[in-house]
Amino acid sequence: MIGMLRFFNGRTLTMRGAPEITSDEVWVDGDAIVYVGPARGDAPTFARELDLNGDLLLPGFKNAHAHAGMSFARSLADDVPLQPWLFERIFPLEAKLTPEDVYVFTKLSILEYLTSGITAAFDMYYFRDAIAQASIDCGFRTVLCGGGGDAATLETEYHKFNALHPLVSYQLGVHSEYTSSYDELRDVGALARSLRAPVFAHNAETKKEVDECIGRYGKTPTALFDALGHFDWGGGGFHCIHLTPRDMEIFRDRGLWVVTNPGSNAKLASGVAPLTTLREMGVGIAIGTDGPSSNNALDFFRELYLTPALQKLRTGDAAACPADDVLRMATVGGARCMGLDACDCIAPGKQADLIVIDLQRPNMQPVHNAARNLVYSGSKENVRLTMVAGRVLYENGAFFIGEDVGDVYRRANERFRALTAR
Amino acid sequence: MIGMLRFFNGRTLTMRGAPEITSDEVWVDGDAIVYVGPARGDAPTFARELDLNGDLLLPGFKNAHAHAGMSFARSLADDVPLQPWLFERIFPLEAKLTPEDVYVFTKLSILEYLTSGITAAFDMYYFRDAIAQASIDCGFRTVLCGGGGDAATLETEYHKFNALHPLVSYQLGVHSEYTSSYDELRDVGALARSLRAPVFAHNAETKKEVDECIGRYGKTPTALFDALGHFDWGGGGFHCIHLTPRDMEIFRDRGLWVVTNPGSNAKLASGVAPLTTLREMGVGIAIGTDGPSSNNALDFFRELYLTPALQKLRTGDAAACPADDVLRMATVGGARCMGLDACDCIAPGKQADLIVIDLQRPNMQPVHNAARNLVYSGSKENVRLTMVAGRVLYENGAFFIGEDVGDVYRRANERFRALTAR
Repeated sequence: MIGMLRFFNGRTLTMRGAPEITSDEVWVDGDAIVYVGPARGDAPTFARELDLNGDLLLPGFKNAHAHAGMSFARSLADDVPLQPWLFERIFPLEAKLTPEDVYVFTKLSILEYLTSGITAAFDMYYFRDAIAQASIDCGFRTVLCGGGGDAATLETEYHKFNALHPLVSYQLGVHSEYTSSYDELRDVGALARSLRAPVFAHNAETKKEVDECIGRYGKTPTALFDALGHFDWGGGGFHCIHLTPRDMEIFRDRGLWVVTNPGSNAKLASGVAPLTTLREMGVGIAIGTDGPSSNNALDFFRELYLTPALQKLRTGDAAACPADDVLRMATVGGARCMGLDACDCIAPGKQADLIVIDLQRPNMQPVHNAARNLVYSGSKENVRLTMVAGRVLYENGAFFIGEDVGDVYRRANERFRALTAR
Repeated sequence: MIGMLRFFNGRTLTMRGAPEITSDEVWVDGDAIVYVGPARGDAPTFARELDLNGDLLLPGFKNAHAHAGMSFARSLADDVPLQPWLFERIFPLEAKLTPEDVYVFTKLSILEYLTSGITAAFDMYYFRDAIAQASIDCGFRTVLCGGGGDAATLETEYHKFNALHPLVSYQLGVHSEYTSSYDELRDVGALARSLRAPVFAHNAETKKEVDECIGRYGKTPTALFDALGHFDWGGGGFHCIHLTPRDMEIFRDRGLWVVTNPGSNAKLASGVAPLTTLREMGVGIAIGTDGPSSNNALDFFRELYLTPALQKLRTGDAAACPADDVLRMATVGGARCMGLDACDCIAPGKQADLIVIDLQRPNMQPVHNAARNLVYSGSKENVRLTMVAGRVLYENGAFFIGEDVGDVYRRANERFRALTAR
């Protein structure tokens, strides 16, 4: 962007402290926020002045667990349990994927992210060069999560991707205990200690996974990872449904993040994470969509609604997991979990990863409590604008990602047909 | 509409039998469908030819349980359990509502219905003249559900509203056992027998409701209603979460409809209805949003996703409640439950209550299985057009309801402020 941009005449939810709506305007210069406050007489000349017209400006949603490249598998194997789904349906197709496939399917998912106000994703998938390139080409922010294998590769990737581009960063990770050997897990622990870096993994998504890990090691995945040093410098787990009380203490004591994926967990009948207990213990929570093959949508409004709704069902208490907590998980929580502290809220010096929510739609009326409207009634129809690093990537239904979206759809369908015919 | 309308060059999901997508075109004349089939050389001159461009045409969704007038209470009392929510927060405000309030808030909800492809609603609320008028003025289809009180009023309403307008019809109903006296319930049974009409009510939404009914009458609400003759000519229940095995047999034996409201039931921590068991028994199922005060959105895509997702969670079986079943509940099931057999599917002679789903959006790609995409990935961004009785009420984000939507929002906000200040 050349010149400064001004958001004015709206409602601003900075998420800097408790969710509170102000009438502050926000100025953006380059990729950063440079001013948040009342209108000023000494304002500079702006390249663009965006009249919010009463609409809501807030930090973008952080999708803290995703496999963007899996959009090839949307609606391909629904209504099937997790283990056969994964081993019989998904893994055989994944074995045939090429980097070019992952590039196109990741782009398709990034388009979908933008439609529900997601401004960054924590992505664990194959062909990380392709994922990074798709993200850079779209102007989208991605935190790559290593998926295990040998520690030497993880170390190389850690240095390479953290130096590659301002929109790309990298965290250590293993896919899961059940897809890793003991030696691999041990070496990742040593690497985490050497790099002083957090480690993330799928953790306690199914009871079977936990039971089998206990069978192999006499420990839950959480306890095993912890014993091997994965959590000496923090990190976290994706899903975290079947945690034991001791696991939860490890999460609390190590300052680990629980990334919840309610849409995927419900559809695969995996269960509901014990977020209410974790929250009471002070464990940090972030929210993710999981992959488009299991969820199947990458719609953050679905997750915003399901996160509290499933807690209410799980606990039998309609007061569980109030909306303000959910907004915090979706923005500040996600950002900090992913190491994106510069993108967590609206404040001077922070990255301009922002969204505008259209309140002039029936589902947002009456405008009594815009924050609760967002969590309990919000929908993609309300996303007026999605901005990443100061650049508008989505506005009024149109995409600005440097490529015609029709071409992305066409290529995705071609590659889907070729993949399933291979 | 003057002249005939042609939908062509798309995918058509008629819902006439099993969900199957064809390339049939559909012609509409006045309020009815007049032709479904391949393109023809002898086609008449059309007033409008709508190129579907590969998009999906299907019957509109039927919202089989709603309280449209409650949009005044959106985000007003979230994160509160059902009984105090109802008795302490909602009932005191409802006592102050005027027919003019209900007219405006119903219009607001109808706007929201249109955005997610809902073409008819089964509405139980106060001031039914106002509800009917809002529906007629918008061109929307409403089946009013009587809310109890004395049987003489129900009888008058039954005759009056069933003769009022082609878009309005009326079914007998009582709000619930717990808001009715024994004499009222008895008289409704006698009326149902005399009119040979089905009766609907809130039923088994909470365990407390069922327990208290057993305490009063030694019977569950289902058994009580049945013993009093409510179900001699059919009918059904809204919510139906805490049904006993005997209740379910009554539903099966009497051919009653279960109307499930998963969004509201989750948010109020009421539970998950035993749809999988009911389905296996052959009980008909329809889907509703419930009111905007409890859900809080009137988004049928939310319900399309939650209906199977919560069944999978409840049963621990990811294969439970497959997508095809859900589509049937949302269209054919809802229509038949509400007495709208003329609106259940796409066939010659049926009412033209139709929607067009935009598949050229990232959440619908790749287009591998459009029906499953709809249930598991669909969103309001995909609703390209909503037509009721042959009239386009919503297209490409714009409303055609005979009134500027800004005026509806303004009036809704003014009345909300006045109501809460009263």
